[in-house]
Amino acid sequence: MAQKPSIPKGTRDFSPTEVAKRNYIFSTIKQVFEVYGFQPIETPSFEKSETLMGKYGEEGDRLIFKILNSGDYLKKVDDDLIASKDSLKVTTKISEKALRYDLTVPFARYVVQHQNELVFPFKRYQMQPVWRADRPQKGRFREFYQCDADVVGSQSLWQEVEFVQLYDAVFSKLKLIGTTIKLNNRKILAGITEIIGAKDKLIDFTVALDKLDKIGAEGVTKEMLSKGISEEAIHKVQPLFQFNGSNQDKLNQLQNLLEASEEGMQGVEDLRFVIANIESLGLQSATLELDVTLARGLNYYTGAIYEVIAPEGVKMGSIGGGGRYDDLTGIFGLHDMSGVGISFGLDRIYLVLEELHLFDEVALPKPKVLFINFGELEAAYCMKALIGLRNKGIKSELYPDSSKMKKQLNYANKRKIPFVVIVGENEINNGNYTLKNMQTGKQKVCTLEELLKITA
Amino acid sequence: MAQKPSIPKGTRDFSPTEVAKRNYIFSTIKQVFEVYGFQPIETPSFEKSETLMGKYGEEGDRLIFKILNSGDYLKKVDDDLIASKDSLKVTTKISEKALRYDLTVPFARYVVQHQNELVFPFKRYQMQPVWRADRPQKGRFREFYQCDADVVGSQSLWQEVEFVQLYDAVFSKLKLIGTTIKLNNRKILAGITEIIGAKDKLIDFTVALDKLDKIGAEGVTKEMLSKGISEEAIHKVQPLFQFNGSNQDKLNQLQNLLEASEEGMQGVEDLRFVIANIESLGLQSATLELDVTLARGLNYYTGAIYEVIAPEGVKMGSIGGGGRYDDLTGIFGLHDMSGVGISFGLDRIYLVLEELHLFDEVALPKPKVLFINFGELEAAYCMKALIGLRNKGIKSELYPDSSKMKKQLNYANKRKIPFVVIVGENEINNGNYTLKNMQTGKQKVCTLEELLKITA
Repeated sequence: MAQKPSIPKGTRDFSPTEVAKRNYIFSTIKQVFEVYGFQPIETPSFEKSETLMGKYGEEGDRLIFKILNSGDYLKKVDDDLIASKDSLKVTTKISEKALRYDLTVPFARYVVQHQNELVFPFKRYQMQPVWRADRPQKGRFREFYQCDADVVGSQSLWQEVEFVQLYDAVFSKLKLIGTTIKLNNRKILAGITEIIGAKDKLIDFTVALDKLDKIGAEGVTKEMLSKGISEEAIHKVQPLFQFNGSNQDKLNQLQNLLEASEEGMQGVEDLRFVIANIESLGLQSATLELDVTLARGLNYYTGAIYEVIAPEGVKMGSIGGGGRYDDLTGIFGLHDMSGVGISFGLDRIYLVLEELHLFDEVALPKPKVLFINFGELEAAYCMKALIGLRNKGIKSELYPDSSKMKKQLNYANKRKIPFVVIVGENEINNGNYTLKNMQTGKQKVCTLEELLKITA
Repeated sequence: MAQKPSIPKGTRDFSPTEVAKRNYIFSTIKQVFEVYGFQPIETPSFEKSETLMGKYGEEGDRLIFKILNSGDYLKKVDDDLIASKDSLKVTTKISEKALRYDLTVPFARYVVQHQNELVFPFKRYQMQPVWRADRPQKGRFREFYQCDADVVGSQSLWQEVEFVQLYDAVFSKLKLIGTTIKLNNRKILAGITEIIGAKDKLIDFTVALDKLDKIGAEGVTKEMLSKGISEEAIHKVQPLFQFNGSNQDKLNQLQNLLEASEEGMQGVEDLRFVIANIESLGLQSATLELDVTLARGLNYYTGAIYEVIAPEGVKMGSIGGGGRYDDLTGIFGLHDMSGVGISFGLDRIYLVLEELHLFDEVALPKPKVLFINFGELEAAYCMKALIGLRNKGIKSELYPDSSKMKKQLNYANKRKIPFVVIVGENEINNGNYTLKNMQTGKQKVCTLEELLKITA
């Protein structure tokens, strides 16, 4: 016998139950996106290589999956180049297309390409798979979905307020209570940079500061010193070592600390606006937390920076993130288009909902009613009833073969079908149906009308 | 300025309106699939090359998109092989993965790989994109969706009945009235083969016969003779030249014609069963038509063959098709698994619905309400109302910037947003809202409660 087939590493098959649970997350996010005025777009799975290459750094370029040209693709390649076996250079000759690496660059390409058809500010959402030739590991895949919402064409801080509300709305709808939405602003980080007098040390600085809980002020100071941050600089930002209290307290501390930095003060003002409005409008189930160590995608973001953390007790870390970027479409020649956007980490959200048993109420894609098949006459009688059930949207089916009753009931049990309808000569003569509740084992003779009612 | 970016030929961007219309078709099909007891699965976008290659014939192999191995993929390739520039052979050394070409082979792979977890008969549906390096032309793309439903593990004719009902249910739900579901059976074609005494001439025969309407009996005879079908054979199947009347009439004619072929008679019996049951159960809006010239996927199908034709007057041809295959999973070593399945041609259905204006009632993904932004105070007041609307699921948004009124109203007009809410000092003082109906131009001052009611 042939060897059992398998799939490429880092990819996954999804069973019906997994598809249903994933769709539950997708459709919840989608619903909230639309309620917030976002519209869906879709872009091709592969783009021209020139669209993607060089947009994600050297590491990113390496991780992009390239598609081989069709036909006799080697024919036109220079003999010497081929003989050199220089994979990098040969690639540009034998591959013109590449699989989408994220949704952001294709979105930027879309906006530039279709700029004359779009109404700005343009609010779009996109939920599509992306591919990365990463080393597969727990929770990291070579094919996975991204769920993004972005607005381009406005610098309004109201949108930064709205994305916090949107996160809260999605996670509340998913019954994932107790998430923390972390907020920072690139301008705050720029201000700190100014204060410590070292633009290039910012990441070292925030990474060290982030360890305060674990290694204490002394440990953090030691790490900062080892990274070449001067004692004087560390002294200047000492308040960040006791950075706590309410968001308002933190804002006041930042205001004092960053007084000397114009950009830093602008960051404080922006954060004040977002935080004050969120506090006045209220959130359903999330907590908004100002976190100056939040620096994700630092090279990229220019204003707000978001990250969502799973409820306490769930070891998962970030389940979403985003921020404002001032020149997204600039890479394709369209400048002065400020954008702000967020992303949901589908696979991680899935794991969290699974761990907290929050999928329990998701309707699985299985029939509610199975009609037992005793033969042609009985089956034909059942088919008439099936039409009635299906017209009412009740998921139902006839067992296709007139196999032994035991086999058919087994099928119902294995698929966890809650109702079974049994039709024999008696039922046909009397024009009714015997309905068996598979959980209680109880049977009841009923009319079609009753059948429709009970199984609805 | 940089050149405007573009996408690879044969691929498409989908605008919000297009996504909404496509999703309307997807969700209609999906809903009916589930009501009929089918469950969704998803498989990876790329499979191991060995899973796909050799499954679609030589032409298919050529049209499969191959993915280049990552890293220094040329390093391990034999120098002589490289120097040979034999693209076909080199491909097997530098590419291990390939993009899905259809949903059928991945489904077969899935069934074999997961056979121990599945309950048979296994009813699955799958709606995912596939990729083919075909020459792009009108209505033919390099990336497109397939929507398939299949059952494996049963030879029941009831399933052949159900797929006719399912087609009818989907197209009726889409309000696409007047489709024709053509039905044939491989055994009928095998019977004709026996009668004309030439197994290898079947395709020539059906292609010629199919032209009866256009070129008449004489033309068809001439074409058959030119293809090497003997005069005697043509004489034997003369009844097929006057093949018309009701499905019952046709069945009776076939019964006479195929008397000498055991397999042909089995085909007549199978068709009688399916047709009789469909006629007794009734269809909502489609017509079932026995068509002996229907031979799609001939090398593949072993029983029922289906094809759905768009309503008369729409030049589109087939919008769906399928059939029974007796050894789908055999290619992966699991034998004796009869399957039957159908497919919906999404892109063609889209074009037909567009042509017949059947998308008119599809809800487009745009906000229903826009709040005009007159400044921070007014916007903050509007945001409170927005929460109320959004909690009720009413798609709504605040214009992000306090731009000129005209610009904001322009935005509402361009996005065809039906309601605009205007809040100034008066409204804030009185705790109400001015609601403008953008179609009638009428304005009305109302409370939040009224606002929620009118825009719901």
